[in-house]
Formats: sequence, C-alpha cells, structure tokens
Amino acid sequence: MDTATARPWDGLIVNAHLATLAGDSGYGTVEDGALGWQDGRIVFAGPRAELPGAGETLAVEVVDARGRWITPGLVDCHTHLVFGGDRAGEFEQRLQGVSYEEIARAGGGIVSTVHATRAAGEDGLLAQSLPRARALLAEGATTVEIKSGYGLELDGERRMLKVARRIGDETGLQVRTTFLGAHALPPEYAGRADAYIDAVCAWLPQLHGEGLVDAVDAFCERIGFDGAQTRRVFEAARALGLPVKLHADQLSDGDGAALVAEFGGLSADHVEHTSAAGVQAMARAGTVAVLLPGAFHVLRETKLPPLDEFRTQGVPMAVATDCNPGTSPLQSLRLAMSLACTHFRLTPEEALRGATVNGALALGLADRGRLQPGLRADFVLWDIGQPAELAYWLGGNPAVSVWIGGHRISHPL
Amino acid sequence: MDTATARPWDGLIVNAHLATLAGDSGYGTVEDGALGWQDGRIVFAGPRAELPGAGETLAVEVVDARGRWITPGLVDCHTHLVFGGDRAGEFEQRLQGVSYEEIARAGGGIVSTVHATRAAGEDGLLAQSLPRARALLAEGATTVEIKSGYGLELDGERRMLKVARRIGDETGLQVRTTFLGAHALPPEYAGRADAYIDAVCAWLPQLHGEGLVDAVDAFCERIGFDGAQTRRVFEAARALGLPVKLHADQLSDGDGAALVAEFGGLSADHVEHTSAAGVQAMARAGTVAVLLPGAFHVLRETKLPPLDEFRTQGVPMAVATDCNPGTSPLQSLRLAMSLACTHFRLTPEEALRGATVNGALALGLADRGRLQPGLRADFVLWDIGQPAELAYWLGGNPAVSVWIGGHRISHPL
Ligand SMILES: [Zn+2]
Ligand SMILES: [Zn+2]
Repeated sequence: MDTATARPWDGLIVNAHLATLAGDSGYGTVEDGALGWQDGRIVFAGPRAELPGAGETLAVEVVDARGRWITPGLVDCHTHLVFGGDRAGEFEQRLQGVSYEEIARAGGGIVSTVHATRAAGEDGLLAQSLPRARALLAEGATTVEIKSGYGLELDGERRMLKVARRIGDETGLQVRTTFLGAHALPPEYAGRADAYIDAVCAWLPQLHGEGLVDAVDAFCERIGFDGAQTRRVFEAARALGLPVKLHADQLSDGDGAALVAEFGGLSADHVEHTSAAGVQAMARAGTVAVLLPGAFHVLRETKLPPLDEFRTQGVPMAVATDCNPGTSPLQSLRLAMSLACTHFRLTPEEALRGATVNGALALGLADRGRLQPGLRADFVLWDIGQPAELAYWLGGNPAVSVWIGGHRISHPL
Repeated sequence: MDTATARPWDGLIVNAHLATLAGDSGYGTVEDGALGWQDGRIVFAGPRAELPGAGETLAVEVVDARGRWITPGLVDCHTHLVFGGDRAGEFEQRLQGVSYEEIARAGGGIVSTVHATRAAGEDGLLAQSLPRARALLAEGATTVEIKSGYGLELDGERRMLKVARRIGDETGLQVRTTFLGAHALPPEYAGRADAYIDAVCAWLPQLHGEGLVDAVDAFCERIGFDGAQTRRVFEAARALGLPVKLHADQLSDGDGAALVAEFGGLSADHVEHTSAAGVQAMARAGTVAVLLPGAFHVLRETKLPPLDEFRTQGVPMAVATDCNPGTSPLQSLRLAMSLACTHFRLTPEEALRGATVNGALALGLADRGRLQPGLRADFVLWDIGQPAELAYWLGGNPAVSVWIGGHRISHPL
C-alpha cells in the first residue's frame, strides 16, 4: 500500500514460497514470500520482508500458506472440451483389433462426435462439457481456451461457442473462444472442401458480430485442409482483425508453421513435423509453439517436435491438454505437463512456463501467467515442496485453492 | 430377502448398470440392474426385474443411480505408497541432463528415499503417505496393497508396516501389507548382500509375530538380489505360512517368474522380460502377472511383457500403480489402466479386470473383485456411459461414491 491512508488490499497470502516465473528462465523463486491483491490485480509479489507495513493490517483477508507454494494460475491454451458424446467405444474397438478404416466405415471417428454435438441442445452440451472444465479448474487452470469445430455448420458452431462462454460464467474460469470451423469436412460437403471453406469464411463475420470469437484456427494437414484453404480462412480473420493460430505439421510437414507465422499468428500447435525453416519463421513472427503431448501419447507417435530448434531460436513453448474425444481425452493440464517431460524431455520448469506464461502468450494475453504487480490475480496454492512436483506426480491433486481475478474458487469439483 | 420376515438389507442401489465381471470374459454387464448389501456383503447383484420384492421396502437405504454404472471396488495390488520425501528434485535433474551416476554419487536414487523414510517418525510418515492413499480411494480403490522396503532395518520396516495398517484405519481402505525387506541393499551392508538377507530372514518372524505381514516380496534383479538370495527369503516366508510374490524380470530375464511360481507365489510383478518357460510355470502354479505400466512409462521402456503368452496360457493379468517415488510416482489406478491400454494394448475390459478381480487374485483374496452375492460390498458408482470410459479418459474423476464393506465413504479427499 503506497500511503497510510490507502484502503487495505483485498487479500494477502504470507508464509508462502512463490514461483513467480519472472524473467526468461528459472522459476523466479521467492522463498518466504507474500502475495497481495486488490481489485482483481496483483499488487505485491515478493519477499515478506519487503511488505510495505505489518501483514495483518495490509489486507482485508490474510491467508497463512504454511510454507506451501504459489504459482500463477495455469493456462490451458488449446482445448476442444465442448463436445457431445465420447469415443470410448471406438477406443475399445481399436484395442480389440478393429481397424481405423472399419471404425470410419461404421460412422466412427470425428464424424461421430459431429453427430453427437449437433444432436445435443445447448443445455445438454453444457452439461456434458462442464465436468471437463471443472476437472481442469480443480487442478489449477484459471484460463482455458475452447475451440468450436464439431458443429461444422453455422448453428452448431455457434452453439459450441455459446456453451464455451457459458462455461466461463458457470465456473469462473477465464474462457477464450476460438472458431475452428475449418476443423474437418462435414459429410454433407464431401468432395467440396473449397465450398465448405466459403461457408466457413461466411460464418466467421456473423459469429464474430455476436461476440463469440476471440481467435481463429484451422486444421492444416493432408487429412484436413490444405495451405490455400487455410490461407483463405486466415484472410477472413485478418479482415476482422482477429488473431489466428493453426493445427500445424502434426502428422506431416505441411509448412503450416510458416503459414501461420506469415500471418503473425499467435501459435502453431502440435508442430511435431515442423522444419527448421518453419521454426525460424515462427521466431521472426513471435509465434508460440504449442506442444500437445496428450495426442502424441495416445497416438503413440515417435516424431518429436524440434525442441532444440525452438530453444535455440527463442520460440516460446506452451503446453496444453488438447482435450478432445478422439486423440487426447485428457482432462488434466498437470498430466499434460508430466507427459511433456516424459515424452518430450521438457524440464519441469519448461513445462510450468508452458502451462502459465507461455500458454498466456499463445492466447495473446500479456496480463497473466506470472506473479507480478499489475497482472491479474489468478494464482494457485499448492501443497508441494518444490515446483518440480507439479510435473513429477502422475495423478493426485496437490491444488489447495485456486484464485481467479482475486476470487477464491471453493470446491471446484 | 428370502422371507417376508427377514430384516431389510442395509442398502440397495437401483436404476444402475452393473459391470459385475462375473465369468472369465466380458464385463458381466447387467443393464437396469440393482445391487443390494447387508452386513458388509453383497446379497443381490442382478437385473432389477429379478429383485425379490418391491425395491423401496427391501432395504433401509435405497439409492437411485440414475442410469450410471457400478463396478467392483478397484484393487491396487502393488504399491510402495508409504515413503518419506519424494524424488521430484532428481526427476528435474535428470531432465536437466544430469546422469543417473552423478545423481547416485550425490546420494540420490533409492538411498535418498531410505534416508527420508528412516528420518520420518511414524506420525510424519503417516502424514506424508495418507494423501497418496486418499488419492487412490477418491478414484475408486477400495483395497490397496502397501509394501515396506524403504526402512531396510528392523525398526524402519516395522514403522512402514505400522503406517500401512494405520492408513487402513484412517481411510477405511482395505490394506494388505507386504514385507519387502529385500528391496535394496542398505548402505551399511554394502558388499554384504548375503549378510543382509540373513537379517531380513531374521526380521520376518518378528514382524509377522506382530501381525504386520500379510505377504512377502523381494526385488530379484541384477541390481537387486539374485535367485539364491530370493529363494532364502521365500523359504523364510514358507516356514511361516506366508504367501510370496516377486519383483520379477523387470529389466532383464532373471528367471524370477519361474522362481516365484515354484513357491506357488501369488504374483510375479513387472515381468517385461519373462520367458515363455516362465509364463508356463506361472500358469501351472496359478501365479498372477501384475503389470505395472507406470514404471514402464516413466522409464520409457520398450520391451513389452509377454502379453499374448499370458493370454494363451491363461495367466490372469492384474494392473497396479506401483506407486513409488522413483520409477512410478503414480497415484491413480485409473491412469494405470489407461497406461496399460496405451502402452501394453490391453483392452479396457482387461484393464478393468486387472484392477478388480485379478488384482484381488494377486493378493490371494477370493472375497472381492466382482459384484456377486456373498462377496464383500466394495463397489464404486461411476458417472460414465460405458465401462470402457474408465480407461479412456486421462485425468478427471468420474467416481461419484465409493462403498467399502457396505459403508459409503464420503468426501475421501
Ligand atoms: Zn487440437
Ligand atoms: Zn514395485
């Protein structure tokens, strides 16, 4: 508090260790630290000894962390968590030896999710999707990106984006919506991908006009849309001033990373097959690499993203769940961090940066992801002895409490 | 209820689907089923239409499952969840490029866990271990095996086993204790493995006399104890009438599976490198194969257990967490099931059998692991649409309620 007459802060946590993630490397550790906030923003994050006055009188509410750790709230910057149905039956069939082809012929794959999502009303879709959002929140996520892409028609896409907004209202999570109309070709457009892209480009201004779109994404892949089609979607986004991102180079190198970088995109996601030239383009454009180890794990992929290139070129790496019913039915960002360490050999610090400050960067959000005065008061109190535990444990939940905009979220599950 | 004058059951769940796991294959599905229990045992598990009377008057408490699923309580038949400290720092160092050798020279590895476990008092050890047990319980485990093996001295081993018993008292979990004195050579016995085995064989009768030992285990491996040493431990167990099990053939084929089978052992655990002859010996002896995909995952192993041999020879396969601070910091049996499907290509049904009826078999317990009249009333109500979801989702927790011995465990976390 600047002067003796200023009103007290809304909250203050003392006797905590902070992983502020200040600076470009290291946890930004503050031992015996304190964190204060007011009006939804952090006003103090530093050593308790540097608090401007006696702790008890500084804030309306003072919490004793008893030596536990505080990190920034986790940011899951890539999810498809709004969907109808699930694909557990298909998962089981594959393990029983049924081929992908047979499953597709029987109406399985993404088409089955499109049918189930179209069939669900808005309330039903919300009811099915809320538990997934709550699972993320319970483990410390405070900002979650949610994509459309299982409606693949104007009404269905609109319903998904509305449900995403409602999830924010219901849970207190900060939700960022992404329009992913160019996720897959709907059955009714079979053989007419360019016509479908025309439709997607026509829906975008409408949905944006309704306040439902924060960013635009596409699936650029041999089994998705090609570079020219992706470019048309990006141009439609640019015409509206909307930022873009891309499912890029997941299964093959389709020059996706370079394409999204050319548009100054927020992120290139998956990027297992991205070339050195693609990494350089990302570095020049400030495009974040979003690593999605859940899909890598489920698909039992072996081709690692060009991690050392990202490090050398200074491309920030984010880590996200990719929560989706087909390739990553993953409802835990901490497990995504663990998988990033085990499969990609990220360090626990890289994994935590990936799920906080770099996740925020991948959403174009400079107001969160670190514990610093002026940033949003989104943070988590963890019952851990050191930050590496967040990526070390598989399962369990060391989150004690989660604050979003300075509000403590109680019993999120 | 057999007659009109019998007292009502303690509880009855209606409007549930049951995965009874009756029989040798399939889920034993009962659609629109009911489950009744009395005095801690199941008295009815079948179609609601076959209930012997009107549901409402049959039981003191009637629960409407609203179409959700009931499975047997999960059985985690292989854990080391009682330990002091953790190895997150070592996990981080390895990912920063520090070699195993350097870590060992600096006092890392299992030795650091032995030091931390010895240093913790009984209450401290309980406090550190309880959250891990509660995490398992919260996701549907009702029976958990817990091994000693980080004391490696009489008092330390006793303390671990006492803490294991206290975990059962505190949580309501059914705990089975296993004496694993022959886990590693403690530093004070360096170069004197046979003398250490002498000590282990002398401690066993004492600990057994104190009621602390339900079974006996050893780590038979090039970096553990050899076959002759393992045999001496098993003979000490046999002299007391205690069943045996073995950490067998994890990193190399040491004929461990055949050895434990020779003693009519309950289980051979890990078994990645077990030979065809070893599998045949297990089949003859009725020894269960306990698959531990957590360690396989963390160690990034590639050698799969001889799964088809187990299937062909009729060796039951269990799945467990192996919860331990070094190679499997895994606190979720559902995640172990998922890893068994992804890494070992088990079907979801095999994974569920592995974590219920076959897990119970691996502990020598014939009174649980299925939903059948006469068995213990240990079961879980899940918010899922089909049993395959239990292995399909990564993270999240679909467990609605857990009953152990007919008692509902509320708010286990
Ligand atoms: Zn995606
Ligand atoms: Zn073990």
